[in-house]
Amino acid sequence: MPSLFDPPSGTRDFLGPDMELREHAFSVLRSVLASYGFEPLQTPAFERLDVLLGKYGDEGDKLVFKILRRGEHEASGEADLALRYDMTVPLARVAAAYGSQLPVPYKRYVIGPVWRADRPGRDRYREFVQCDLDTLGSASILADAEALCAQHDAFAALGLPQFSIQLNSRHVLFGLLEAFSVPGSIGTQVLTSLDKLDKMAPDDVVTELVERGLTAGVAGDIVSTLTASDSADRLRVALKQTETGTAGLDEVDTLLSLVSGQIPAERLAFTPRMVRGLSYYTGPIWEVVADGIAGAIGSGGRYDHLIEALGGPDTPGTGSSIGVDRILGLLPETSGPEQGRVDVAVTVMGQEFAQQAFDFAAAARSAGLRASVYLGSSGKLGRQLKWASDSGARWCLIYGEREHRGGAVTVRDMRSGDQSEVPTDELRAHLAAVSGPPR
Amino acid sequence: MPSLFDPPSGTRDFLGPDMELREHAFSVLRSVLASYGFEPLQTPAFERLDVLLGKYGDEGDKLVFKILRRGEHEASGEADLALRYDMTVPLARVAAAYGSQLPVPYKRYVIGPVWRADRPGRDRYREFVQCDLDTLGSASILADAEALCAQHDAFAALGLPQFSIQLNSRHVLFGLLEAFSVPGSIGTQVLTSLDKLDKMAPDDVVTELVERGLTAGVAGDIVSTLTASDSADRLRVALKQTETGTAGLDEVDTLLSLVSGQIPAERLAFTPRMVRGLSYYTGPIWEVVADGIAGAIGSGGRYDHLIEALGGPDTPGTGSSIGVDRILGLLPETSGPEQGRVDVAVTVMGQEFAQQAFDFAAAARSAGLRASVYLGSSGKLGRQLKWASDSGARWCLIYGEREHRGGAVTVRDMRSGDQSEVPTDELRAHLAAVSGPPR
Repeated sequence: MPSLFDPPSGTRDFLGPDMELREHAFSVLRSVLASYGFEPLQTPAFERLDVLLGKYGDEGDKLVFKILRRGEHEASGEADLALRYDMTVPLARVAAAYGSQLPVPYKRYVIGPVWRADRPGRDRYREFVQCDLDTLGSASILADAEALCAQHDAFAALGLPQFSIQLNSRHVLFGLLEAFSVPGSIGTQVLTSLDKLDKMAPDDVVTELVERGLTAGVAGDIVSTLTASDSADRLRVALKQTETGTAGLDEVDTLLSLVSGQIPAERLAFTPRMVRGLSYYTGPIWEVVADGIAGAIGSGGRYDHLIEALGGPDTPGTGSSIGVDRILGLLPETSGPEQGRVDVAVTVMGQEFAQQAFDFAAAARSAGLRASVYLGSSGKLGRQLKWASDSGARWCLIYGEREHRGGAVTVRDMRSGDQSEVPTDELRAHLAAVSGPPR
Repeated sequence: MPSLFDPPSGTRDFLGPDMELREHAFSVLRSVLASYGFEPLQTPAFERLDVLLGKYGDEGDKLVFKILRRGEHEASGEADLALRYDMTVPLARVAAAYGSQLPVPYKRYVIGPVWRADRPGRDRYREFVQCDLDTLGSASILADAEALCAQHDAFAALGLPQFSIQLNSRHVLFGLLEAFSVPGSIGTQVLTSLDKLDKMAPDDVVTELVERGLTAGVAGDIVSTLTASDSADRLRVALKQTETGTAGLDEVDTLLSLVSGQIPAERLAFTPRMVRGLSYYTGPIWEVVADGIAGAIGSGGRYDHLIEALGGPDTPGTGSSIGVDRILGLLPETSGPEQGRVDVAVTVMGQEFAQQAFDFAAAARSAGLRASVYLGSSGKLGRQLKWASDSGARWCLIYGEREHRGGAVTVRDMRSGDQSEVPTDELRAHLAAVSGPPR
């Protein structure tokens, strides 16, 4: 039952451990993408309304969160700004705004939230994080290969246990239509039906193709070619009859060979039936899928006219998108940072020792550990040890009358319960030694 | 002149180097705050309108960005959501929503944008990043001391060249009013005037105090006490006449002693005239200032009734706020990450060597370096070397016919121009050796 204090419908609060896992994942992504020479970009959460509207189709426009005008204009009930719906329209605006100041090619990544007023549901949020990497200004297939490798490495570095990449090319799809003499007028619809071969029975797809206007013979031929056990070989034969198909095959083969040193063969497959719904792709296309997860957890492809269509300059583009929010649920528990809020919990056995407690915590931090002083009101050791344990601390420091007189601090190992007395001026070195090399 | 492609008024795009500096600063902040056992929190960019409105006063409410209702309700021109205006109202909501699931005390930090429809100006943005650290559920002065130390360490770790912290207590201020027999009805106004002593001439403050209803004698006494060279001593004498003043002095002295091991004395001063405009503080208060910067770059204090007033549970609270956006402009150039988009630029001397180029780039990455393959269309070495130089690469790899025959790759030092041939299977080790220990 939603409470008065829940976050707005379709949005989430991320508390400590969840947020740590997310920050860890973002940091892994930043590091992998930087290692490929992609540079970060951040644009505002909102854009002017006219920059966003009309770019996502009528259905998309309805999902845009619009911001009411302010001050005297608020009463008009009109909007002048809107929350970012994706990362591509802002990229087109940035390419237009900073054109000559940007490196050529401009390789950028972005990690941040986008907002869509979709009906909230399982795995569907109104605020979710998108990670995109794109290269603008290179028509080379090397740029496609790089986007594919960077995306693969990102998934691998996140520790995703199992995933695979389905590779195809728009030219393969066009060649396929040509080879089977599909009329141009129904080409897109036919491709949309073929894309359902991963979730619909082949016969049902044939039926749908016939409904769309193919003869039963052609429909049966296409589907059996795409679903045969030797599908790839049969398709190659068919595609080689057409120029577009041959170009598409070359494209796929070149890509497969370029990335062969970096993407294990079992993780990457030429998947001729894979269409990607979006009509703006112009060359290679790919999707990343994981066992047991419906839909793609990543995607990508070349889109040589999209940036111009979105209001940017006429520049070729290619890139990958990583469904961060979808992946985060798939990661093994152990892939996040270490558990526990602190490494060292420092008790305060009386206010007269509070200053020493602060100094001990500082010493622990200077040894690279996370440390916190007890902030409660109990003077009892038992209560403070419980707090230390609840905090997930590895060590607890105790400093009372006895330690004070002896110039030492008791270091309690919270796992074993073992205690040792360490001279206060050796505390930092002691903690550094027992905690091992800095993380 | 604003262009069609500029970001919305009062917002900014952050391109590569700027964004790297920002990410570096965020990462430093996360690391310091985690080292104190503060855990991260992230709440949605927007809240329900009723959660936000009425919390910031009439002036604040006007600055809230409101989000139009959607679908059939859009035409109503009404808003149901609004962008986060600060981090404290969401904290109050989280404390109410997750109460018993949160650690006690709940120590959290948050780094993220807030939005205010202020008139944009120099150093005043409509989207800016706020970093807050707060401890809820501890009434102990140790929690204040910890918030103060964590904030200090964060500023220091960011590499801020010069800053100092002004410390005071609301009890000192109330004791001051009592000691000088200021009528309770004008107490707040008197404090507001005294806060101007850092930018107004003492005589002008006296005049203002008289206008507010003090006698000339009392107004002169207070101002001379606060501006005398031995101000602190004279103030102590005055404050000790009252119970509240004595408690305030104790509070300040306890704090000064608790943090003495961590905050250098020259960076922290008891500043009795410092008021902080916000009436919700109930105990110690502090501001961080930097030479040549108007206003505070950080602030903090105890606010034992605020969370309840904002709709949360009745819990004591204390915390610090770090003006990240203001600080980023003050950091020395050298405090950011290393310059250059890549460490290793890999040329492609013909498409037949493209796959090797990819493998070399992967080898460089596995040696911990950032590497990119040439994605342009020129086959000329000169053009590719220029690209390598523009990318800020430290090394450039060249692999053509000659290298291919010899099984080696030419490694060019882009600073010295020196070149050496390295057997391809030793490339990774070579790059690891010349680039030194991993960063």
